Amino acid sequence: MPAGTPENWIVGRAPEGETDMTYCLGILLPEGLVLASDSRTNAGVDQIATVRKLAILENPDKAVIALMSAGNLATTQTVVTTLKQAAGTGTPDRDLFLHNSMFDVAQTVGGLLRRILERDGPYVERFGDPNGTFLLAGQIRGEPPRLFQVYSAGNFVEATPRNHYLQIGETKYGKPILDRALRFDNGLARAAKLALISFDATIRSNLSVGPPIDVLCYQTDSFSTRNLIKYKNSDPYFTELKQRYSDGIQATVDAIPEPRLCPEG
Amino acid sequence: MPAGTPENWIVGRAPEGETDMTYCLGILLPEGLVLASDSRTNAGVDQIATVRKLAILENPDKAVIALMSAGNLATTQTVVTTLKQAAGTGTPDRDLFLHNSMFDVAQTVGGLLRRILERDGPYVERFGDPNGTFLLAGQIRGEPPRLFQVYSAGNFVEATPRNHYLQIGETKYGKPILDRALRFDNGLARAAKLALISFDATIRSNLSVGPPIDVLCYQTDSFSTRNLIKYKNSDPYFTELKQRYSDGIQATVDAIPEPRLCPEG
Repeated sequence: MPAGTPENWIVGRAPEGETDMTYCLGILLPEGLVLASDSRTNAGVDQIATVRKLAILENPDKAVIALMSAGNLATTQTVVTTLKQAAGTGTPDRDLFLHNSMFDVAQTVGGLLRRILERDGPYVERFGDPNGTFLLAGQIRGEPPRLFQVYSAGNFVEATPRNHYLQIGETKYGKPILDRALRFDNGLARAAKLALISFDATIRSNLSVGPPIDVLCYQTDSFSTRNLIKYKNSDPYFTELKQRYSDGIQATVDAIPEPRLCPEG
Repeated sequence: MPAGTPENWIVGRAPEGETDMTYCLGILLPEGLVLASDSRTNAGVDQIATVRKLAILENPDKAVIALMSAGNLATTQTVVTTLKQAAGTGTPDRDLFLHNSMFDVAQTVGGLLRRILERDGPYVERFGDPNGTFLLAGQIRGEPPRLFQVYSAGNFVEATPRNHYLQIGETKYGKPILDRALRFDNGLARAAKLALISFDATIRSNLSVGPPIDVLCYQTDSFSTRNLIKYKNSDPYFTELKQRYSDGIQATVDAIPEPRLCPEG
């Protein structure tokens, strides 16, 4: 199967209509990358739909490039579909497989996003926000795995060992557990566990973010997506994780002494 | 000391300039109210300063009324100072001590906020957002304690046993712990403990929210503010709570099995 065909793309889509927000998380580790996104979703008005998805472009044994998106669905889908169609065709400014560095991939994604927003934005703005953002992650042979956040302006930032996770969408509910427990030297499996706890916190506090959750654990130099797992709400592991985490929080809270209050007169 | 004098007001203010965001939390319980706010803060430009504070108006043995505010400092200060000056003077639409119900207090606060925004808003808008919001809580003799959120539009919602806590400002980081562990039948001390954990989560994830944290535990029918405690970062109880919660989270995460990954070829 040639690189760049639709079959090389795994688009993390769930049944529609259940939610209207997005949460995507990318974690950079020495062992590789953990990428997680909740399920695809539509807002009420299709022009301003908020969507999250995990799209993966594989060039066998040479590159694994993943895009997670939030924001205007028409904008982000146009970017992703254009990149998908161009992969392996040699088209400049579109074919991500032409690049030898994820930095160049980020520039191409940002540039394409700019052009699409320049073209479509003025028509869309009177109906809603045309903007979209991406988490871009992956590895090209010759480099370590890298992780970027591409803004609507087409510029981007890269994760580093000191700032080793990036989020887009509904980011805040799931941030405290990452700040408390995630370290750069964590292994892939521990980071995936923390990613699922982060999603659980988000789902509990925002009904509009919902499972299933797609989690890709990418091991450095594997050039493989075999560890792409879709966690449904009923998944036995996800269910056990949620229960044990909830029980642990309750026990922790119960064990902390309460502040002393003055008796009221 | 007559009601309505400045001495009757306890304004939760910390040294300025350390932070630039706000988080205020109000919890309604059968035993009373727990109200918490982080310390006062200024944004870079004073017209659009974001501030949080806890102001308490006491009418001895008759009413305890607390206001916590977020948003434009000039707007919220004008509302609070106007109400402070009017307390006990008998001025219609301003003197909160005229009311026999917190519902009427909420209408007066919302109405005053509307008038101030109508008067000042057009002048302020070209410099920044003139809006402000309040958590309004307290008890008037003859009623149980009540808790409201007053929006910039001057309308408001009331907490209920099924929706028994309200937040303003930087609300999301501190919400998951409340959703997991806070119940309507909790006592004041347990709710205060959870409020402090909620603030700790917010402070860890957003450097712009900072201690000290003012916490008022108001016991139903006490008409007393003796349980107003300012928790500095170095407070021994707050320090122990943070450490024990952090250790408990770490132990909980460590005890949860990690997801099984396929070995990479």
